[in-house]
Amino acid sequence: MNDDFTDIEKQGFYKAIYSRRDVRAHFTSEPISENILTKILHAAHHAPSVGFSQPWNFVLIKDNNTKKTIKESFQIEHKRASELVQDPKRSEYLSFKLEGIMESPINICVTYDPTKFGPFVIGRTSIPEAGIYSVCCAIQNLWLAARTEGIGLGWVSILSNDVLKKQLELPEYVVPVAYLCLGHVSNFETTPDLERAGWLPRLDLKDVVYYEKWEQKEDSSWKKIEQLIKTNLDTLK
Amino acid sequence: MNDDFTDIEKQGFYKAIYSRRDVRAHFTSEPISENILTKILHAAHHAPSVGFSQPWNFVLIKDNNTKKTIKESFQIEHKRASELVQDPKRSEYLSFKLEGIMESPINICVTYDPTKFGPFVIGRTSIPEAGIYSVCCAIQNLWLAARTEGIGLGWVSILSNDVLKKQLELPEYVVPVAYLCLGHVSNFETTPDLERAGWLPRLDLKDVVYYEKWEQKEDSSWKKIEQLIKTNLDTLK
Repeated sequence: MNDDFTDIEKQGFYKAIYSRRDVRAHFTSEPISENILTKILHAAHHAPSVGFSQPWNFVLIKDNNTKKTIKESFQIEHKRASELVQDPKRSEYLSFKLEGIMESPINICVTYDPTKFGPFVIGRTSIPEAGIYSVCCAIQNLWLAARTEGIGLGWVSILSNDVLKKQLELPEYVVPVAYLCLGHVSNFETTPDLERAGWLPRLDLKDVVYYEKWEQKEDSSWKKIEQLIKTNLDTLK
Repeated sequence: MNDDFTDIEKQGFYKAIYSRRDVRAHFTSEPISENILTKILHAAHHAPSVGFSQPWNFVLIKDNNTKKTIKESFQIEHKRASELVQDPKRSEYLSFKLEGIMESPINICVTYDPTKFGPFVIGRTSIPEAGIYSVCCAIQNLWLAARTEGIGLGWVSILSNDVLKKQLELPEYVVPVAYLCLGHVSNFETTPDLERAGWLPRLDLKDVVYYEKWEQKEDSSWKKIEQLIKTNLDTLK
């Protein structure tokens, strides 16, 4: 079973992983075809879910009134956030383009409905958060599928979920997990915006991997992988 | 920018999306090569993260004492969960194989560290949960990359996070998000275990898509996609 993916199939998969970007600029006005949008949603719906509960919903949005309301909420929250930092970080923060709500032709709100197939959901009895984690897996499937189809996607998390819930008429028990902006783009950047701007560096893989226990950076039974993780990994892509 | 993925590259990507399974049985004792494991972790580390905070860590585990401790925690939580349902559902629940902790050669605990690059993380000021959502995106990258490399992965959420934190010596502020079991497998099932067992059905895509507002199943500006989503989508894969 080790080699059921050909080299070119693997290459296609990793191309999606490494060329996916969080897109805020570069949206064009070209509409997304129904065929492409359906393929992207279909891929999202085939994410893993705890107890096969499929607790996600996708609210498709192109209504300008909704987009304007969410954009206003972004502006309020963005200003509020800027007051949490001092210059020069504050000015730098304010200079970033952090959303493409109006420019992207389609917005999607992805939600979590804990009542779906409940209350007894296999695997959610000890860790209830597993339900919302499933929705995030669907979002990542959606994001990667969008990239594969040449569609840029930006996740806007600078907004008020209360405003969002009211605007979309979500019931009290439904959690809005993500507000996504999708559209064709003039180009995809090769590195994340905040990395390119020098806001934060990409961590090395060795900085995020521990062995057997928290913060343990070495372990006798993991010698070979420790070495490999420390070397230049670009050859592995 | 619409066609920068060739048909065969797209096919490789969608093959990963649709053939990925939550694996509990079928693990073999064949070790995972360091090369493959590094590729999988590298793909996980290239997930999107709010404010480029990369708040994930991966604790690699093959120590049998840890695995036994987690397996015991599973057994306690599994029994407790079974008491929440009545027969015949209870017996059916107890008949399912829900973890492969001991059989899989490598377990990975994926964690969320909210202090990384904090406290001011772009995009986490209004919705703090966005940090943990980033970790879930990394888990889905990891899962898909594993599938592409022929590695089965099972997410065990029936366990006590308190036991897990103590065993791995996680600091109080670090959240264990997922406990994953990885290994080569004799085969991948073509459908999810719980669907095949008749526990729950796969929802139709049309049942999880709304237009403009919650529960709105029709909207004049979305006619074409409504039709497409209702038809047989297997041709789109």
